[in-house]
Amino acid sequence: MLIMDVGSTKRDVVDAARRVLRDHLGSFVPAHPITGKEVAGVEHADADLYRGKQVILTPIEKTQTAHLKRAQDLWEALGCHVQQMAPDSHDAAFAAVSHLPHLVAFALMDAIQRQPQGKEFLGLAGPGFRDFTRIAASDPKVWRDILLSNRVELVEQARMFQRSLENMLQLAETGASDQLEEVIAQASQVRANWHMGRKK
Amino acid sequence: MLIMDVGSTKRDVVDAARRVLRDHLGSFVPAHPITGKEVAGVEHADADLYRGKQVILTPIEKTQTAHLKRAQDLWEALGCHVQQMAPDSHDAAFAAVSHLPHLVAFALMDAIQRQPQGKEFLGLAGPGFRDFTRIAASDPKVWRDILLSNRVELVEQARMFQRSLENMLQLAETGASDQLEEVIAQASQVRANWHMGRKK
Repeated sequence: MLIMDVGSTKRDVVDAARRVLRDHLGSFVPAHPITGKEVAGVEHADADLYRGKQVILTPIEKTQTAHLKRAQDLWEALGCHVQQMAPDSHDAAFAAVSHLPHLVAFALMDAIQRQPQGKEFLGLAGPGFRDFTRIAASDPKVWRDILLSNRVELVEQARMFQRSLENMLQLAETGASDQLEEVIAQASQVRANWHMGRKK
Repeated sequence: MLIMDVGSTKRDVVDAARRVLRDHLGSFVPAHPITGKEVAGVEHADADLYRGKQVILTPIEKTQTAHLKRAQDLWEALGCHVQQMAPDSHDAAFAAVSHLPHLVAFALMDAIQRQPQGKEFLGLAGPGFRDFTRIAASDPKVWRDILLSNRVELVEQARMFQRSLENMLQLAETGASDQLEEVIAQASQVRANWHMGRKK
């Protein structure tokens, strides 16, 4: 029997599998489909949710190749692009591109709603805010667990982000126009050249 | 003649108008349509860009009511919902729901691209990252000017955001599961109940 999970962190799931599956550990293929919605429940089901999306498999030393192949075939049949990486590398990468963005989106909503004028501010927000904060509507229990289980990598990524943010704030406060433009231009360029699911 | 601007900050534009327009200050109606794209140029023109969107007019004491009316009629003819507020209140609100989100999105891209594995991380990013960072592709010169001209309100909003972020990081690091879930749940609730262009 093939055993799979579809969680957003892999090191904790692999640790749990080692403890629990014992002799059946070879049947376990850790998987992470890179897609999702900020809403849960069967009423939000979407038959095309996986089409064209990436799935990361993070096999370990005991994983049996036959099961790995079955897992790969299954995801490809759903229309996914499958790639493999080590559980640790997976968790570092997703701290940077998924878990930290969620944490930041939650923190931004938190900071706004704590202000007396918060509701008035929200009434004026536009499409940029809508897209930026979409992930802040995600499921609290799911994200509590993700942030906790990947806290080491998350904190490391957060510290780097805080340094970048503080640097930009200093440039704005001191009116360092050219340097501020340079940082923005580089960030803007990297984002404009990024396309989902394509390695550069 | 009606004179209007469509900039994202209003206090600086009003100050400039006072200095420059002198006797014609009454013809000036400061305006801010709450919509836009992260790409510039006529090749990205969109006839529906303003339809159903909000426009904020920030008239001052000298603004002539006839010109204010003309401005309102013009925006409504384009399909916009028009509302009025003071230039100062406008700038505080947009620091919170637009300028800070842009700064944060730029800083996140900056923090990722500074890392040796940055490109590899970006290759794994999914739809959540796509939406969260869309505004990071915005025009560098435009955003340099916005961040600089609204720096006082921006820094104030950024300090509140930094406190919220640091609080959540502490909760994650110390494994304060219930409290972390509570903060996320509140943020998630506020975002889920938010709908663009609707005051609550």
